[in-house]
Amino acid sequence: MTFARTCVVGAGLIGGSVARRLMALGVDVVVVDPDPATLEHAAGVGLATAPAVPADRDLVVLAAPLHVLSAVMVDVAAAAPDAVVVDLGSVKQVPATAAANAGLAERYVGAHPMAGTEHSGFAHSADDLLVGVTWAVTHGVAPGAAATVARVVGWVAETFEAEVVVLDAVAHDRSVALVSHGPHAVAHALLSVAECSPDAGVASHLAAGSFRDGTRVAGRNAARTGNMLAENAAALGPVLDEVIAELTGLRADLTDPVALRVRLERIEEAAGTVRHAETPFESCASLVDLVESSRASGRAVVVRLRDGELETATPAGRKSE
Amino acid sequence: MTFARTCVVGAGLIGGSVARRLMALGVDVVVVDPDPATLEHAAGVGLATAPAVPADRDLVVLAAPLHVLSAVMVDVAAAAPDAVVVDLGSVKQVPATAAANAGLAERYVGAHPMAGTEHSGFAHSADDLLVGVTWAVTHGVAPGAAATVARVVGWVAETFEAEVVVLDAVAHDRSVALVSHGPHAVAHALLSVAECSPDAGVASHLAAGSFRDGTRVAGRNAARTGNMLAENAAALGPVLDEVIAELTGLRADLTDPVALRVRLERIEEAAGTVRHAETPFESCASLVDLVESSRASGRAVVVRLRDGELETATPAGRKSE
Repeated sequence: MTFARTCVVGAGLIGGSVARRLMALGVDVVVVDPDPATLEHAAGVGLATAPAVPADRDLVVLAAPLHVLSAVMVDVAAAAPDAVVVDLGSVKQVPATAAANAGLAERYVGAHPMAGTEHSGFAHSADDLLVGVTWAVTHGVAPGAAATVARVVGWVAETFEAEVVVLDAVAHDRSVALVSHGPHAVAHALLSVAECSPDAGVASHLAAGSFRDGTRVAGRNAARTGNMLAENAAALGPVLDEVIAELTGLRADLTDPVALRVRLERIEEAAGTVRHAETPFESCASLVDLVESSRASGRAVVVRLRDGELETATPAGRKSE
Repeated sequence: MTFARTCVVGAGLIGGSVARRLMALGVDVVVVDPDPATLEHAAGVGLATAPAVPADRDLVVLAAPLHVLSAVMVDVAAAAPDAVVVDLGSVKQVPATAAANAGLAERYVGAHPMAGTEHSGFAHSADDLLVGVTWAVTHGVAPGAAATVARVVGWVAETFEAEVVVLDAVAHDRSVALVSHGPHAVAHALLSVAECSPDAGVASHLAAGSFRDGTRVAGRNAARTGNMLAENAAALGPVLDEVIAELTGLRADLTDPVALRVRLERIEEAAGTVRHAETPFESCASLVDLVESSRASGRAVVVRLRDGELETATPAGRKSE
């Protein structure tokens, strides 16, 4: 393993799942959490726990809520002076700034496993929750961070058998606004209008697949969804502006069937980049060089391990490019 | 069977599936379609075909496109003077007006099977496509139409083992705008913004369930989707206005986490009428009385057959009612 002595701070759904995976792989891992019941639960499944991050750790994984992350980073910077620090939040620009402010610029790397469930808390964590899913890992804060980022990319690919998308924090936050936070906001609006309609009861009997799928993630976990959307406000706002503009244009075209068809055909022809992308992978010699060149060009790269060999792919641009 | 001699006009996906079902049940059914290849295909699977609606039919099922429906109704009114005429389009106000104009007010009933696939044409029709799905049947155009509507409701429930929602055409068109056409429009907007983004390629690698589900029905069948949305413009427009207003409000709340959480919590609490409605059924003595009272009160009713017995339920109002 790339890291020998790990500490996970925050043993909720995500942190708990990281800790359980490491334990299952036989890696030395210690769990830190401010909640005694969570610590007890973690100890109950065999995890080592500690009141604070031990100084001997070479990797500290932060799975703490965003609003406490700045304070946690300051503590971790002092407690584990040699550790690489990785946070797993669903936005990446804010943590990168917090890391720089905590003096972690040289050893901080942002990551984001693209998984989760509608549940939260250690009780729902599992050693396979984050395995085989795609992870995002962001370019480092400091100019010379490529080696550290490459180390974390390798650790993620190996530990979680993951496809890792390496990209900068701005592109990450814009992308998750497009494919996760935007869909959550839109699903909410759709469900909201239906539930508040006088036709809600009748509509429930006529609802078919498009409504069920289009509202699946809405109307649940208001607190968590609200935090997630608000934390990515800077990137999500412009995405929602574009969705509103497209929907407003379509609404205006309802009385102009030709314009409406042209609007829909344009996307029928374009559809493919986001939905059907198949990116060819090729073998890769140096992960550090790859990360450095991704950072320099600003282009994302995808990395995975196949039979122990490193492979890489470059995501497509827009189809029109 | 409630009707002994049926004619299906328009043997595409839906009309073809009705004809195949009737044939499978051993009912006398004749298929009429302007396309020789379609007629040949229908004859090839054993269906009787004819160049025009035979005069002896007691039921004519119209599964023709909306833009030809007025002309078809005038023809059918003359060709089959004793037949009940049922159209199966996805909107119901426009056909009702066309039927009245064609002199069919006393014997026209609107229906809408809530099913379909992404395919179209007779080649994709099947004798079980419309079986076991929910059908909507609308109140008649003429004041004394309850008996005819009840006959069609019974025919649908029996022939297709369907749960039948009986409601007026206005409520039907509003409801399908809420649960089908609105979701299609919103899915289009979401996919459109993602596909046109410079981050589309990266986003494709990070896309998870919420994006896949939220855009599933978008980017396909532009012509058919365009027709469907434009035909229900009168009901869909106000629904989209409300979705846009809710999305605009949410977008403004992104920088006000408390307001955002309140907005999401309101729908988390309300969610249930559309999504989780469980309506108790009870046995029903007279289908005609039921249809008449639904029409008089303006409240929808749901009808089904269980072990040959007629059962009915009244959809819930809004949860707040």
